Amino acid sequence: MFSGLSAFPLTPIADEAVDERAFVGLITNMVEAGVDSIGALGSTGSYAYLDREERRRIADLAVQNAAGIPVMVGIGALRTREVLRLAEDAQQVGAAAVLLAPMTYQHLTVDEVHDLYERVDRNLSVPMCVYDNPATTHFTFTDDLYERVSALPSVKSIKIPGVSADPDVTAVRVQALRTRLPDDVAIGVSGDHLAPAGLLGGCDLWFSVIAGVLPRVSVALTSAAQTNDRERVAVLMDRLDPIWRSFTGYGSLRVASAIAEDLGLVQTSNLPHPVTGLPADVRAHVRDAVNALADLV
Amino acid sequence: MFSGLSAFPLTPIADEAVDERAFVGLITNMVEAGVDSIGALGSTGSYAYLDREERRRIADLAVQNAAGIPVMVGIGALRTREVLRLAEDAQQVGAAAVLLAPMTYQHLTVDEVHDLYERVDRNLSVPMCVYDNPATTHFTFTDDLYERVSALPSVKSIKIPGVSADPDVTAVRVQALRTRLPDDVAIGVSGDHLAPAGLLGGCDLWFSVIAGVLPRVSVALTSAAQTNDRERVAVLMDRLDPIWRSFTGYGSLRVASAIAEDLGLVQTSNLPHPVTGLPADVRAHVRDAVNALADLV
Repeated sequence: MFSGLSAFPLTPIADEAVDERAFVGLITNMVEAGVDSIGALGSTGSYAYLDREERRRIADLAVQNAAGIPVMVGIGALRTREVLRLAEDAQQVGAAAVLLAPMTYQHLTVDEVHDLYERVDRNLSVPMCVYDNPATTHFTFTDDLYERVSALPSVKSIKIPGVSADPDVTAVRVQALRTRLPDDVAIGVSGDHLAPAGLLGGCDLWFSVIAGVLPRVSVALTSAAQTNDRERVAVLMDRLDPIWRSFTGYGSLRVASAIAEDLGLVQTSNLPHPVTGLPADVRAHVRDAVNALADLV
Repeated sequence: MFSGLSAFPLTPIADEAVDERAFVGLITNMVEAGVDSIGALGSTGSYAYLDREERRRIADLAVQNAAGIPVMVGIGALRTREVLRLAEDAQQVGAAAVLLAPMTYQHLTVDEVHDLYERVDRNLSVPMCVYDNPATTHFTFTDDLYERVSALPSVKSIKIPGVSADPDVTAVRVQALRTRLPDDVAIGVSGDHLAPAGLLGGCDLWFSVIAGVLPRVSVALTSAAQTNDRERVAVLMDRLDPIWRSFTGYGSLRVASAIAEDLGLVQTSNLPHPVTGLPADVRAHVRDAVNALADLV
């Protein structure tokens, strides 16, 4: 489950409901491209905006359409009671793993977050990935907390923010982190523009937003990084640079949504309100970037 | 509705369910102390952690037990669809007003937040209070956005963070803000330790956490500030200073919860997990502070 490329599909919305047909299309696209795993209901999958029934349905559709590729399901919620219900639902529909970010409204302490993971751990029979995403949760993990949650039996991966565009700088950080984690806990990098450097720097896998809409180039990039073909990585990253630039300021979700629109994978206006699409100028920039990538789609 | 002291009750939790008996006790306590209005399901009322049914029940209990004192009900949620449902529920149970904070998971733009308020405004028949709480929403209002949302017909109050402990500094800010708002939009101050300065500096009302557990002293403080009795304000603020100090670092919710425990108003462990109580040393400090306030309770 926790190696190579893990692709995170959008959960497209149409008329305030989940667009199931479009979602299945996104999953099929990933399967055909040969991703290693699928991460349904991540931040890119708008988990925080969906109700329990919608989340159960999306998790089920992901598993049913993944053609045997392992599916990890996001179970984050503000309240522990709800997280436990979502964990149960994910396991019932056949999730191979669950992904848990410590969502906050009130600021949480390190001990409170540890206690959350501990309670969930006691109720799991599949592996858990600890999801560190300070941009959305406004909670920052310490290395000490990484170590404490990784000691929980079900924790088998940590999803860390990107470290640096320099693989050597990343390698120092990844090595330091590894000394604090059990050997069987995989380190996964997120933040797509830093992810190839993450793989070159020793991360076990890439938790990828862009692979949810451009899986082929993401598979190629992962493969180049895994075989240490730095020239090929550089060429592909150069081609993708206009995409990474548009992430800045508006976030990867809105950009992934725009790319999916341009590729005809989803309807226009597919995000959960009040989240809406990109402003017109950035939107046009993304369209140009997607057109220029036609040979890699 | 939007003048004087607006008291925000906790929503006490017991065994993962809402402790209705304790909640009614808190409301009765406020009514007997003579608060001007009640703000159910604010941040202090843990609105973000409760499901729709729990929120409807709490709103209903607040209205039924308020003895005619107007009740404002928090309707915030991450998704607009849910906010609209909660607005409908609040109106059905007889809320005199609704309170809306722009909760975020994905970062929201100013235009997205404006569009949220506009959609809700179109579906309201009671006044709305715009709730600016960057510590929990991680969204920061601009003055321009204050002006835009205040132009919506239903918006009749803005709940601003505290400005300064100096009433004169606060007055400059409040006056500047008033030039941008319609005359019938009340400015309410939150952040209890800055609230008396807010009232002395010209705010119309105090949206108060502490009034949810210590309504008598809060009524006295409001009255002193409204009559410009600065000496009395200073005396009371000096007595409350140990409470304000404990807010720092752990937030007013955990402290209000501890005070309510010490006064026998709620059970021990009454917060929605993963939010838990204060660490032992701060907890002891609050207990001492409450004991020292016995004559004001």
